[in-house]
Amino acid sequence: MEIKVVNFEKKFEKIKDLHSYKVIAQMNNYYFKLVKMQREFIWHQHPETDEVFIVIDGNLTIELRDKTLHIKRLEMVVIPKGVEHKPSCNKECKILLIEPMETINTGNISSDLTDTKLEWI
Amino acid sequence: MEIKVVNFEKKFEKIKDLHSYKVIAQMNNYYFKLVKMQREFIWHQHPETDEVFIVIDGNLTIELRDKTLHIKRLEMVVIPKGVEHKPSCNKECKILLIEPMETINTGNISSDLTDTKLEWI
Repeated sequence: MEIKVVNFEKKFEKIKDLHSYKVIAQMNNYYFKLVKMQREFIWHQHPETDEVFIVIDGNLTIELRDKTLHIKRLEMVVIPKGVEHKPSCNKECKILLIEPMETINTGNISSDLTDTKLEWI
Repeated sequence: MEIKVVNFEKKFEKIKDLHSYKVIAQMNNYYFKLVKMQREFIWHQHPETDEVFIVIDGNLTIELRDKTLHIKRLEMVVIPKGVEHKPSCNKECKILLIEPMETINTGNISSDLTDTKLEWI
């Protein structure tokens, strides 16, 4: 694969739809994915892997069963494997996700929100 | 481990020295490390793993054998395993590195620049 510099803002400009996960890079068996989010997601967990959220713009809330995390621009959090979480943004938020290639957005839950189409941009 | 939000800028404020790699997060067997860099590094490669550079502030140059990459604020690049590269910054640059926990900064080369002390901040 050609070695290219990836500009987050330019990649986000290519994403027209909310909640459409796009792959921008691969490191070993991990994908770097961008998503524009404005919704209340569902409670779920990833039994096999930790998951990283980095906020590139906006404000992301992640509810855990025992506390609520508020993640702002240029902040990150690691949700450990097996930990139930419920992300939400009431305004549009731009997020970089890092997780193994095979990770499904809704984790252990099959839902209308499950997105198995992964396009590279 | 407690689940905490990590603010890149606040973590960088804690780093007083150049070229001192600090761990800020772990995802599975990968470390997220911050470093303030202002030097010409050495040619090296990582035989076992890809390596991710994300520029949080400043301008990073990475020479490859066949081209030169210029990485600016909020841009990233994946250097594939086995690919020789030589990072440099002539002004101070703030970098987020993502790589397996056991990865050594100078890869296949043992050098005065090899840093095996990894402190969490």
